[in-house]
Amino acid sequence: MTKSPAKELQARKTALKIITDFFNQIHPLTPALQKELELHTFPLAVDKGKILVRPSSENKFFYLIVKGVVRSFIKQDNKEITTWINCENAIVSSIRNLGINNFSGEYLQTLEKCQLIAIPAAALQNVYNTYPEANFYGRIIIEDCYRSSEERAYISRIPSALKRYQHFEKTNSDILQRIPLKYIASYLGITLETLSRIRAKK
Amino acid sequence: MTKSPAKELQARKTALKIITDFFNQIHPLTPALQKELELHTFPLAVDKGKILVRPSSENKFFYLIVKGVVRSFIKQDNKEITTWINCENAIVSSIRNLGINNFSGEYLQTLEKCQLIAIPAAALQNVYNTYPEANFYGRIIIEDCYRSSEERAYISRIPSALKRYQHFEKTNSDILQRIPLKYIASYLGITLETLSRIRAKK
Repeated sequence: MTKSPAKELQARKTALKIITDFFNQIHPLTPALQKELELHTFPLAVDKGKILVRPSSENKFFYLIVKGVVRSFIKQDNKEITTWINCENAIVSSIRNLGINNFSGEYLQTLEKCQLIAIPAAALQNVYNTYPEANFYGRIIIEDCYRSSEERAYISRIPSALKRYQHFEKTNSDILQRIPLKYIASYLGITLETLSRIRAKK
Repeated sequence: MTKSPAKELQARKTALKIITDFFNQIHPLTPALQKELELHTFPLAVDKGKILVRPSSENKFFYLIVKGVVRSFIKQDNKEITTWINCENAIVSSIRNLGINNFSGEYLQTLEKCQLIAIPAAALQNVYNTYPEANFYGRIIIEDCYRSSEERAYISRIPSALKRYQHFEKTNSDILQRIPLKYIASYLGITLETLSRIRAKK
């Protein structure tokens, strides 16, 4: 992934434009916050199937997904359980230790070749404390994550496998075709066989 | 629940002190924010077993639990499924339509006689927009809710009923004795019989 300095610079400029637009769309950025984005965020290209975050790594970055799909999973008795799947325009990270240094148990893995923009967690904390207005963006983004999280807790509590899948299909129609079935099955807590049977009936 | 004006005033003063302390503990409040709390929040006493929020009601309030236990549930095929249980010092509300007017499907119910402090959602939005520093509190509180929510999504994905209960016991030791078993069973997605069997073995 070695790039020429000119290409590297261009990638940084493009990434800065994307992340600036992302925040401007929530609320126009102040010059000070724009400067902070410039100082701390950087683009990251990651191949398909790579582990972005491990439970052993401290939770050092948030990632804006510019292109690609990322899933989170935990391991239970050596079995991987998919806990969420996100794509373009989501900000992802290890969540259960968000802002605190608890052990999280979460892995983040790319399911496609990904273009990400990394936001260092330490820089973010600093920005929150220095610029009160930064908390406006933080609150809006976290509220959105929170709603998604409740949605995941909700879907996992639907007793019927068929209804779980139907709910997933309805709320994830945009990325359904991009996720290997085994991860959808794992996310829905059903076997691949059950999922195939449900899909075949449609 | 009719009170004398003097008692009413005293209850408001006590509530204001509690909610001021709650926010001061996150970060010292500015006089403007303290004034907003004074203007908009009010105490609410609710008997055990009452429905605080219905899916049909718009999500108009957040509640700080001063005393008591509140659960949230959804209905699936006429069966109630408990989605969370919270006690003192939590701020609760209908979550899936937090800040947006989507249909949420959530009921909030008191499991004990409760003392609550109500925060009108509309006033909160206004405060967020007028005082940037208010977003600092909002972000911190929502981050905390978000972690709890991920914790709930996590527990619901543990395949073994025994391990789900053990995890619940470990993370909710403070309120375990206060929650009727049927709600714990519902929250963990197991039958009351299975829960009793698990507990009897210990």
